[in-house]
Amino acid sequence: MNTRGYTKTIPRFVNCDSWESGIVVQYTTKGKLSSTAGQVIRCKAAVSWEAGKPLVIEEVDVAPPQKMEVRLKILFTSLCHTDVYFWEAKEQTPLFPRIFGHETGGIVESVGEGVTDLQPGDHVLPMFTGECKECRYCKSTESNMCDLLRINTDRGVMINDGKTRFSKNGQPIYHFLGTSTFSEYTVVHVGCVAKINPAAPLEKILPEGLGATLNVARPKKGSTVAIFGLGAVGLAAAEGARISGASRIIGIDLNPNRFEDAKKFGVTEFVNPKDHDRPVQQVLAEMTDGGVDRSVECTGNVDAMISAFECVHDGWGVAVLVGVPNKDDAFKTHPVNLLNERTLKGTFFGNYKPRSDIPSVVEKYMNKELELDKFITHQVGFSEINKAFDLMLRGESLCCIINMEA
Amino acid sequence: MNTRGYTKTIPRFVNCDSWESGIVVQYTTKGKLSSTAGQVIRCKAAVSWEAGKPLVIEEVDVAPPQKMEVRLKILFTSLCHTDVYFWEAKEQTPLFPRIFGHETGGIVESVGEGVTDLQPGDHVLPMFTGECKECRYCKSTESNMCDLLRINTDRGVMINDGKTRFSKNGQPIYHFLGTSTFSEYTVVHVGCVAKINPAAPLEKILPEGLGATLNVARPKKGSTVAIFGLGAVGLAAAEGARISGASRIIGIDLNPNRFEDAKKFGVTEFVNPKDHDRPVQQVLAEMTDGGVDRSVECTGNVDAMISAFECVHDGWGVAVLVGVPNKDDAFKTHPVNLLNERTLKGTFFGNYKPRSDIPSVVEKYMNKELELDKFITHQVGFSEINKAFDLMLRGESLCCIINMEA
Ligand SMILES: NC(=O)c1ccc[n+]([C@@H]2O[C@H](COP(=O)([O-])OP(=O)(O)OC[C@H]3O[C@@H](n4cnc5c(N)ncnc54)[C@H](O)[C@@H]3O)[C@@H](O)[C@H]2O)c1
Ligand SMILES: NC(=O)c1ccc[n+]([C@@H]2O[C@H](COP(=O)([O-])OP(=O)(O)OC[C@H]3O[C@@H](n4cnc5c(N)ncnc54)[C@H](O)[C@@H]3O)[C@@H](O)[C@H]2O)c1
Ligand SMILES: [Zn+2]
Ligand SMILES: [Zn+2]
Ligand SMILES: [Zn+2]
Ligand SMILES: [Zn+2]
Repeated sequence: MNTRGYTKTIPRFVNCDSWESGIVVQYTTKGKLSSTAGQVIRCKAAVSWEAGKPLVIEEVDVAPPQKMEVRLKILFTSLCHTDVYFWEAKEQTPLFPRIFGHETGGIVESVGEGVTDLQPGDHVLPMFTGECKECRYCKSTESNMCDLLRINTDRGVMINDGKTRFSKNGQPIYHFLGTSTFSEYTVVHVGCVAKINPAAPLEKILPEGLGATLNVARPKKGSTVAIFGLGAVGLAAAEGARISGASRIIGIDLNPNRFEDAKKFGVTEFVNPKDHDRPVQQVLAEMTDGGVDRSVECTGNVDAMISAFECVHDGWGVAVLVGVPNKDDAFKTHPVNLLNERTLKGTFFGNYKPRSDIPSVVEKYMNKELELDKFITHQVGFSEINKAFDLMLRGESLCCIINMEA
Repeated sequence: MNTRGYTKTIPRFVNCDSWESGIVVQYTTKGKLSSTAGQVIRCKAAVSWEAGKPLVIEEVDVAPPQKMEVRLKILFTSLCHTDVYFWEAKEQTPLFPRIFGHETGGIVESVGEGVTDLQPGDHVLPMFTGECKECRYCKSTESNMCDLLRINTDRGVMINDGKTRFSKNGQPIYHFLGTSTFSEYTVVHVGCVAKINPAAPLEKILPEGLGATLNVARPKKGSTVAIFGLGAVGLAAAEGARISGASRIIGIDLNPNRFEDAKKFGVTEFVNPKDHDRPVQQVLAEMTDGGVDRSVECTGNVDAMISAFECVHDGWGVAVLVGVPNKDDAFKTHPVNLLNERTLKGTFFGNYKPRSDIPSVVEKYMNKELELDKFITHQVGFSEINKAFDLMLRGESLCCIINMEA
């Protein structure tokens, strides 16, 4: 038992190749107030002082959680393109100093006023989008785009008081996506936190790609699914197709190196648009007697979005867009492609409601229905966090775990 | 009983204002071979000899049905924009002489080889698209776009032998949409014929608009539905919204005259895009706190299609396209509109499978759930069929019934 009142029992993190199933952590003070509750915690955080410059591990002060907030202890986190994108801050209003990081699991250290459904010691996944359970979106069975807690990449403060909970020598440090997990402790709105099985590893669950397939595309058993873009999101979409019993999973990427990785995720065929002198949707139609049953676009490239739509079979094809487009992109197609009974949908966070639905995804993993370990290709210690950025910028890592205690 | 072996019992066709519920016809030879079976029938048909020229009522010869065909007696038919469009034959390869007409009910006079599920006397609705029940589309629960019998506006012959069943003095006369109902008798593929309740009126049932709402948009009770284009198709879509229990049905049309008619179909509010200096999707978003729950586009105008898509609420909105676009139209939108969880779909024939689903639509009418009588604004005798064309070209008629026996 250490000074912060918890015992780590089975930190089963080994190296990236033989990484097994994460960690199990148990608070000895489960349900009781931790000794740090109500106090400022001084801990290590990787602060981004300037756009595109290496992060600096600093001692920062983390204020106690306010109304409807929880403070979490982070043990592992991972790096995602979204962090890198806002760290580079190209074509954005820069907001620095900032603490990035949004994919992680954590343990509740203390809770603020009004928080009744979480208590210290609970295992949780903080998420970049939330579920207030009160707004029209939360009340709709069809949506997960909570009005109050929907992702906001520009906001660097907590919604309760418009202030930050991080500071260094009194200087505020901005939050990112309401999560800021590149810190040993962070403060998160309770609506952005899903309580999960404490036996589950506190790891990323890649809901975007997975939910895009499982909740939105919904391929039937035996169907043919095309996945555009074989990054972490696309491979999670492929994992969704595998779980759904798709008989053919066709991966499309401009980078032929992606195919070896993709095989592990059940991708059965690979198409590189560069290898063909005709549109890839035509290649796919030829391969599949008229088109695929479902497609999931995970590139962010608008041409890939159009191809992903036009490659689905008429009569029943469904295309799902996940990738985040550029500001000036235009999705363009002949309306007859729609009239011929194709469906086009977009998804946000895989259509999962963060608090209501995510715990069941974790259960899928616990039942061994869902395989997540294969996503983790690298791991680094917290002090080497800039290495994780390098790996991602060089396109070498799929998911790089950052171990906060190493 | 007349020479052709049937007795008309209650031809309850009065004038267009007080028209009640159609006709009931009973064959006295129900189930038995009619005296004309296997023979050429000479009867009246409205022949279109030349593009855009008035039709001419002629005595034509109608050959007996071949393999998998049925010959029908037509008593009432109606005129639709599609007939007018192909009769005008602008920007098309003209195919004349031709017998137009595709919306009607009929009675089976005789059946060809291999037809087992229909017999003389059956009441049927012939349709411009079919259901072979064998192809991948027919076997899919998600589609109605039969591979064998899908609408083909260019074909003027029967698929069995590539020949016409109509002729005059030995000169072949082309078919239209496989139906050619502007004739006292016509020959139709059995896969394009739905057997319906013999007590039902042999009238048009407007499946496109109705099915677009009921089968594809599927508004929930209490929801807000926008209908773009208040012609016959749009008003049938509105009728679908009314049946679904929509609380607000907003009609959008460039022609303010359409609103009075539309009120009868449950349309509660009216927006004319011409009355506003900002895009109509913005006007609708303001009227509905962010967007409508469902929209159905029934104009064929690509700008209306884009508005219909962009006016649905993020998170759960579904837009359905019904209108037939021009060849060079491009549907264009920012992909973020999709990512924000909007769905865009097109439909063909309201997603109804012609033989499997249409009889139940007729039952809905028989149960008084569905109101169809209000669609009929005019009626003319067969000899005055060119009047029906004039009424439609002047935009005065919604649905003009042509009484074959007057
Ligand atoms: N909607 C959501 O909820 C959500 C959440 C997270 C990420 N995303 C988005 O999903 C997308 C994928 O994320 P990622 O982390 O997997 O990215 P990534 O960069 O690791 O993977 C993208 C892959 O797409 C490939 N690609 C790019 N253009 C292509 C094209 N025209 N055709 C075929 N392949 C192409 C690249 O080679 C790369 O392998 C991004 O746009 C990201 O912003 C969406
Ligand atoms: N998908 C199918 O199965 C199917 C079947 C039959 C007909 N259709 C199509 O449905 C459409 C409607 O058919 P209809 O017979 O009702 O036609 P119609 O001409 O009677 O009605 C169309 C209405 O749309 C209005 N309109 C035109 N442009 C508009 C715009 N930009 N904004 C708002 N309103 C506009 C017109 O004023 C008119 O009232 C046509 O395109 C037709 O080809 C589709
Ligand atoms: Zn991410
Ligand atoms: Zn909410
Ligand atoms: Zn029609
Ligand atoms: Zn078929």
